[in-house]
Amino acid sequence: MPEHAPPAPPPILLLTCGDPAGIGPEVVALAWHATAAHGRARLRVVADAALLAEVLATRPGLPRLVIDRVSGDDPRRSQPDRLLVIEPAAGSGQRGPIEAGVATAGGGAAAAAAVLAAADLVRGGAADAIVTGPLHKAALHAAGIDAPGHTELLARRCGLDDSDVSMMLWLPRNDGVGEGAGLGVVHVTLHESLAQAVARLSTTGIEQAGLRLAALLGALLRRPPRIAVAALNPHGGEAGLFGDAEQRLIAPAVARLVAAGIDATGPLPADTLFLRASRGGFDGVVAQYHDQGHIPIKLLGMHRAVNITLGLPLVRTSVAHGTAFDIVGTGAADPASMLAAIDAAIRLVAPRVGPPSPGETASENAPALP
Amino acid sequence: MPEHAPPAPPPILLLTCGDPAGIGPEVVALAWHATAAHGRARLRVVADAALLAEVLATRPGLPRLVIDRVSGDDPRRSQPDRLLVIEPAAGSGQRGPIEAGVATAGGGAAAAAAVLAAADLVRGGAADAIVTGPLHKAALHAAGIDAPGHTELLARRCGLDDSDVSMMLWLPRNDGVGEGAGLGVVHVTLHESLAQAVARLSTTGIEQAGLRLAALLGALLRRPPRIAVAALNPHGGEAGLFGDAEQRLIAPAVARLVAAGIDATGPLPADTLFLRASRGGFDGVVAQYHDQGHIPIKLLGMHRAVNITLGLPLVRTSVAHGTAFDIVGTGAADPASMLAAIDAAIRLVAPRVGPPSPGETASENAPALP
Repeated sequence: MPEHAPPAPPPILLLTCGDPAGIGPEVVALAWHATAAHGRARLRVVADAALLAEVLATRPGLPRLVIDRVSGDDPRRSQPDRLLVIEPAAGSGQRGPIEAGVATAGGGAAAAAAVLAAADLVRGGAADAIVTGPLHKAALHAAGIDAPGHTELLARRCGLDDSDVSMMLWLPRNDGVGEGAGLGVVHVTLHESLAQAVARLSTTGIEQAGLRLAALLGALLRRPPRIAVAALNPHGGEAGLFGDAEQRLIAPAVARLVAAGIDATGPLPADTLFLRASRGGFDGVVAQYHDQGHIPIKLLGMHRAVNITLGLPLVRTSVAHGTAFDIVGTGAADPASMLAAIDAAIRLVAPRVGPPSPGETASENAPALP
Repeated sequence: MPEHAPPAPPPILLLTCGDPAGIGPEVVALAWHATAAHGRARLRVVADAALLAEVLATRPGLPRLVIDRVSGDDPRRSQPDRLLVIEPAAGSGQRGPIEAGVATAGGGAAAAAAVLAAADLVRGGAADAIVTGPLHKAALHAAGIDAPGHTELLARRCGLDDSDVSMMLWLPRNDGVGEGAGLGVVHVTLHESLAQAVARLSTTGIEQAGLRLAALLGALLRRPPRIAVAALNPHGGEAGLFGDAEQRLIAPAVARLVAAGIDATGPLPADTLFLRASRGGFDGVVAQYHDQGHIPIKLLGMHRAVNITLGLPLVRTSVAHGTAFDIVGTGAADPASMLAAIDAAIRLVAPRVGPPSPGETASENAPALP
């Protein structure tokens, strides 16, 4: 018996372009060429190769990439100048002319076919994670697909309800997020009116969001994360003067998180909390409602934010931006979010591959994904 | 009869230090020494001169300033190295030892005596505006003064109710607020629970906030400002899917503002709105609730934000920071907010003094203050 097992082969990451009429193909091509991930993972793009080649040819300012069709079990490593493409086994969906910046049934179908094929490959054990480009809701709808986005599409493909999955917004460290390793945000409530969000807050909901946040950040950072739970009311309720959600709902949830061994603090007034978190005071924040988390994340650098799905039986990261139809083909598309999404996916599937980033402590005991 | 009237003498600005145990005296001394305002206004500090000298002597790292007592009608110009002090006619209030970073009745009384004396001087026509340093609520309370802060103290001195006055947060342009002239925020609701704020929103309240914002920004910028009104719900309610406050309350208020000749846009989703405003897309934002305005302002640079009171019969600007007891005497106090408050006060009382700042268009038709 050998003393050491042979090193595991690098994980396989499947990239999808999202809607071909949007900036997805551009950010995938730019990120493929620029990423250092080829040294740590085997990257593939799941797409109709002919369609992808056709679309990329119409977008100026991209790196010159050779497009190579490969099978799902091709063992070769990826390289910056050669795009390895796996075609969806079930075909590319309805095919039609793709016009930059226009939502069509053909674009929606191609986007859905790619992401579902990628999910099947990961679920079948042929790949390790999915990194997705931006979908267009109206194009999906035109293609007869009744899902508002990736998350629901993937949940249903995995036999789950929409409510079983949620997401973390992840802002990797850079100049905007100065001192810490980055900043993760999980929302307790999201796509509902503010009045309903306030009425629906519960200790259990806040606790669950905190547990998901801590588990995912632990996997990303490979150490126990420091999380904060935002207050709902101004000044954190000013000791009950401006509402009692803090004492009644949020403080008990924080107490449960602490009892579960999580380094959790709160409730903290949201305005100063995000300033403190952006300076490295916390690794993650539980936001009580949509805008409480989205206002600061967008100000701090949404263009490089990553959306990580929680609750799926597979690792999926995504760009946090949209199809940006208004800048398609102008050369303005920024691959920062796609690069960060690739990086986050590698961390989640291969916590021991490569040295940790500066500011992080490597650990063999990365927590399991929630 | 001469063809031209002689130039008006520069306006008189009265600075107060706020609580002497806080960083107020430091930021006043630093700002006095650093400001270019001596060329455009006559600055005075309203304080007990002996107390101020005593306090400043205990704070290291300050510029060396001669302290000169002057009377209210002293005509001389101010200079960077000579602090001109007007003592409160009614005395300095209860006097006791001031210890850095400790709230005392003596400190609260001295702070209140200074600001009330300054208000009386402006109301009597002997000065033009007040620029205030930070108070400490507990010290005020210990001194037997039942007002949570300056705004209420001044409202009552002027015979008004607390509800007659409100404030605009003003973030002058710098690296954080890149393209525009700066960013002003007025809140429709402020110090109440989020649930109550949501329930209390009204078209009239939103309209009034927009009118106040536009009038004050017009006076500051000397041109018609571009203002935006934030939505309440995520994605601006997503066409009614996430709440109807946008169609029911906010859109009608925006329509009234436009009908009143104001360049108003909205409702706009709050998360992208503040990003856009911070890049110069708007001069001001009407925020629907406390944290909606405070989260972005704090991230964009609260340390140099200015608080401008609306509804008083006098011009009053203020630092937007607190007494910062934890850094008193450490040399860490930053006069940026005090400098910006002085600058804003000069613009409001003397719109035709000095050239406009870059990015602004001078106008003789500065709107009246609300």
